[in-house]
Amino acid sequence: MAKTNPGRFFEDYQVGQVIDHAVPRTVGAGERALYHALYPARHALYSSDEFARGCGLPESPLDDLAAFHVVFGKTVPDVSLNAVANLGYAEGRWLRPVYAGDTLRSSSEVIGLKQNSNGKTGVVYVRTRGMNQRDEVVLDYVRWVMVRKSNPDAPAPDTVVPDLKKVLSVDDLVIPEGLDFSNYDFTLAGEPHRWGDYEVGETIDHVDGVTVEEAEHMMATRLWQNTAKVHFDATFRPDGQRLIYGGHVISMARALSFNGLANAQMIVGLNGGAHANPCFSGLTVKAWSEVLDKAKTNAPGVGAIRLRLVATRGGAPFALKGEDGKYLPDVLLDLDYWALMPI
Amino acid sequence: MAKTNPGRFFEDYQVGQVIDHAVPRTVGAGERALYHALYPARHALYSSDEFARGCGLPESPLDDLAAFHVVFGKTVPDVSLNAVANLGYAEGRWLRPVYAGDTLRSSSEVIGLKQNSNGKTGVVYVRTRGMNQRDEVVLDYVRWVMVRKSNPDAPAPDTVVPDLKKVLSVDDLVIPEGLDFSNYDFTLAGEPHRWGDYEVGETIDHVDGVTVEEAEHMMATRLWQNTAKVHFDATFRPDGQRLIYGGHVISMARALSFNGLANAQMIVGLNGGAHANPCFSGLTVKAWSEVLDKAKTNAPGVGAIRLRLVATRGGAPFALKGEDGKYLPDVLLDLDYWALMPI
Amino acid sequence: MAKTNPGRFFEDYQVGQVIDHAVPRTVGAGERALYHALYPARHALYSSDEFARGCGLPESPLDDLAAFHVVFGKTVPDVSLNAVANLGYAEGRWLRPVYAGDTLRSSSEVIGLKQNSNGKTGVVYVRTRGMNQRDEVVLDYVRWVMVRKSNPDAPAPDTVVPDLKKVLSVDDLVIPEGLDFSNYDFTLAGEPHRWGDYEVGETIDHVDGVTVEEAEHMMATRLWQNTAKVHFDATFRPDGQRLIYGGHVISMARALSFNGLANAQMIVGLNGGAHANPCFSGLTVKAWSEVLDKAKTNAPGVGAIRLRLVATRGGAPFALKGEDGKYLPDVLLDLDYWALMPI
Repeated sequence: MAKTNPGRFFEDYQVGQVIDHAVPRTVGAGERALYHALYPARHALYSSDEFARGCGLPESPLDDLAAFHVVFGKTVPDVSLNAVANLGYAEGRWLRPVYAGDTLRSSSEVIGLKQNSNGKTGVVYVRTRGMNQRDEVVLDYVRWVMVRKSNPDAPAPDTVVPDLKKVLSVDDLVIPEGLDFSNYDFTLAGEPHRWGDYEVGETIDHVDGVTVEEAEHMMATRLWQNTAKVHFDATFRPDGQRLIYGGHVISMARALSFNGLANAQMIVGLNGGAHANPCFSGLTVKAWSEVLDKAKTNAPGVGAIRLRLVATRGGAPFALKGEDGKYLPDVLLDLDYWALMPI
Repeated sequence: MAKTNPGRFFEDYQVGQVIDHAVPRTVGAGERALYHALYPARHALYSSDEFARGCGLPESPLDDLAAFHVVFGKTVPDVSLNAVANLGYAEGRWLRPVYAGDTLRSSSEVIGLKQNSNGKTGVVYVRTRGMNQRDEVVLDYVRWVMVRKSNPDAPAPDTVVPDLKKVLSVDDLVIPEGLDFSNYDFTLAGEPHRWGDYEVGETIDHVDGVTVEEAEHMMATRLWQNTAKVHFDATFRPDGQRLIYGGHVISMARALSFNGLANAQMIVGLNGGAHANPCFSGLTVKAWSEVLDKAKTNAPGVGAIRLRLVATRGGAPFALKGEDGKYLPDVLLDLDYWALMPI
Repeated sequence: MAKTNPGRFFEDYQVGQVIDHAVPRTVGAGERALYHALYPARHALYSSDEFARGCGLPESPLDDLAAFHVVFGKTVPDVSLNAVANLGYAEGRWLRPVYAGDTLRSSSEVIGLKQNSNGKTGVVYVRTRGMNQRDEVVLDYVRWVMVRKSNPDAPAPDTVVPDLKKVLSVDDLVIPEGLDFSNYDFTLAGEPHRWGDYEVGETIDHVDGVTVEEAEHMMATRLWQNTAKVHFDATFRPDGQRLIYGGHVISMARALSFNGLANAQMIVGLNGGAHANPCFSGLTVKAWSEVLDKAKTNAPGVGAIRLRLVATRGGAPFALKGEDGKYLPDVLLDLDYWALMPI
C-alpha cells in the first residue's frame, strides 16, 4: 500500500463528514517577523505590543491573515490537493485573536456536494474551524472548491448546496474581548482618517506596488504549511511557472491597503472572495479598495467597515469587470471583508 | 599580518588537535519559523508545542537538522574553508534536543589524516561536538573532508585513518529523556503508518518536489553561519553558479519525506551520507526513502527505523547508482539515518 | 480628499518642525533570526546571549544596524518619500541597546533647509530620534536628503544649514551601561586581534563577497517597514530594476567586515556616510575597512575604534575615489563609524 497521501477525490466526500486536519502549529515571534518581511505590513496594532495594549489587548496578535493562512494550510492535504479550482469563501469570522505561543489546528465539515454535469468533477463545500490549544475556535469560514473524481464512474452524490450568507451582518461579527479604540493614537497609527471619514461607495487607490519574487511566495506558502504542489514545483505546469498561493496575494493587497486604510486595523469578517486571475512571479501587485458598508458596534470607539479589496497586476484602479461580467485580466483578487476602525 | 582568516590547510592539522570553533549562537522562535519557511517541514513534533508535550517533551525542540546545521556551520571556517570536497559523515548522534533559548557552540578534534598520492591535498577526519550553554553535548558526528595543502612541499603526516562504525547500532542511539509515544496522536501527526507498518527493504517515493531559489539557500546557509564562499558569491565559480550548501538539500529531502514518513519524528543517528552531485538554483528537488533496518528501543512506544534518504533532481525514484557503481547524475544526496517512530 | 500619503514636498518643511513618525514596532527573536538569515552576521555579542552576558549585558541585543533600520524606516513616509537623493548622515549615536520585546518609534526635527539654485528641489536636514517603550532615546542621528518641490513657485525658505560635527569625539560616544570586555573570550569571538593590534591607517580587505538577490533586499526593506517605492516596484524605474535600500548595503558590508574585524563588536557612533553608487540585484558586494582613529574609553577593557567601511561591487580593495575626487564606479558605500573593541 502506498504510504503517501494521494489527497481526496470528489467521491471520497460525504455531507456531514468531519475531517480533523493534521500538523498542529505553534506560532510566535518568528511568524510575526516573517509576516512583516514578506508583506509591507504596517497596521500598528500588529506591529507594536504597546499600541495593541493601548487598544485594550494584552499584546500584539498574529496578523489576522496569518492566522487564516495557518488554519487554511492545514486543510489543503485533505480538501484541495486534487482541486481544480478554489471557487469561493463565505461566512468567514475571526472569533478570537491569536497570540505568540498559541497552537493552532483545523477541522473541516463537509456541508455541501454537487457533481458537475461533465461527470468528471464536483464542488465540495466545507466549513473549516481553526482552534487554539484551549479548544477555542479562533476562526471559521466556508470554502468551496472544484475537485476531480478519481473514478469517473463513481455515482453522483445527492446534491446539497448550503445556504450561505452573501454578507455577514454586523451582528454576526465578534469583536475581540477588551477592544477599545477610545484612546486610539492616530499619529502612531499613521493616518488621521477615522470611521466617520469614510463614505459608502468611496474608492481608494492604494498607490504602492510590490513586485513578487519566487523565493518570497514559496517561503510564505511553506510557512503556512500549505502543501499544494503547484506553488513549489516548476516542473508541475507545462509553462514552468509556479502558481502563487492566493493567500499570498490577499496578504500583499491587504498590506498595501495600509496607504489609505491604515486605521482598518482588525479583520473580523470575510464575506466572500474570488481569485480572479492567477498570479505569477515577476508581476507587480497593486491594490484598491471600495467602501461597501459601515456599521457601529457595541465596543467603545469601534466601528465596523465593510470593504472590497481588489488586487491587480497594475491595471487601472477601480476597473473590476468587463462588459461580459467577467473579471478583467489585470484583476487578481476581489475580496469582501469587514474590518474594525476607530470611530 | 593579515587579520582575515585564510582557513587551515592540510599541513595545519595534527591528529589529536582540538579546535574550539567561534561564534556561539542562541536559537529560538525565529530560527524555528525560518526553518518552516525555508523547507516544507511538517513533522508535528517540531511544529507544535502541544504535540511535543503529548510525546513527553517540555516543548517543541528546534528541528534536529537545524541543530546539526548550526553546529556544522561553526566548523566551516576552521575545517572546510579550503576544502575541495566534503567526503563523508559517520557516527552522528543527537544526544539531547535543542530548545528555544539554548546557546550552541562547537568543538572539533582531529582524529585522522591521510595525504593524497598527488601530494597536493589530503583527507582530514574530525569528530565535532555541539554543546549547549550548560556544556551538555547535544550532537556529535565525524566528518571527513579533502583539504588543499598551502605548501605542496610540506611533509606528509603519518597516515591515521579512524576506525568508524559503518552503522550505529540501536544501542548507540540516545533516546531523548522522557520521550513517550504511548499516546501518540496519529491524526494530528498526519499519517496512520506506525513502526510496525514499515518493512525492511520497503521503498517510498515521496512524490512532492520543490524548486530551489538562490535567495532561499543563501538565507539558509547564512542563518547557520556557514561561511563557505562558494555558497554566496556568484563570482567564485567560472560558471557564475552558486553551489548549494549540502545541508540545504538534506533538510529539503527530509521535509519532503513527511509524505510517507510523517511519523519518523526525531532523527537520532547519522550513519553516513554522500553529496552525490552538486545542487544549483533552479533544480527541483525530489526525494525517496528505503527502509534499511528496524529496532525496538526501551522508551515507551518508541521504535527506531533506519532509513536511506535520497534526494534527486527529478530522476526516477529508487535508481541510485549506475552499472559502474557511481551515483547517477540525478542523485543529489544519499543519506543513512536512524529516526524514532511510534510503535 | 485623497486618503493616501503623498509624502511631504520641500515646501512642506519648516525649521523647528517636529514630526512624530507612525507605526511603532516591537522587535524580538524573529527580527534577530531574520537579520542572521539576510546578512552573514557573525559578531558574537549579537549571536549569543551567553557571550553578551560575558560582556556585562543582560542578553544579546538586536544588531545595532537593525535598530538603525527600524528607526530609519519609520522616517521614510515623512522625510524621504519624495526624495531625489539621500545625501548624508552625521552625529549618529547609539545610546542604549535594543532588546527583544522592546518597542521602537521615531521622531524627527527639521534642523535645516536649503533650496537648490534650480528652484525645483531643496535639501532638508532632520535630526531623528529612536525611542523605546520607556521613552528612552536608543539612537539619534542627523540625515539630509534632497526633496522635490511640489509647486516650483513656492517661495524659498530662509537657508539654515546646521553646524554638524564632521566626526564625533570619543567623549560624544555612549558606552552601554555595564559593558565590560575584561573577560572577553577571543576564541569564541572568532579572532585574536584586540584594539591594540590595530593601527591608524591600517587597511583590511574583508575578502568575502555576497551576491544580492531581489527577494532578500525586499524582505529586509519590508522588515524595517521602509516604504520607499523604488525598492519594491519593478515598474517604478524605466530600466525595471529595483534600487536596493542603502541600509541593506550597510548591513551587508558590516557583516562581511567580521572577517578581520570580528572584535569590533558594538557600533556606537556614525560620523558620516555616502551611498556612492546605487546597488542592484545580481551584484556581488565586497567590503574593505580602514582604521581612521582609536581612543580609550572609561569602560573596563573597552576601546573605541573609528573605521571607514567601504562596500564595493567587486572593485579592487582600498580604491575609493578617482583623480576627479569622485567615488569610483565600483564603490557602493563609504561609511565612517565608531565601534567598541576589547583592549
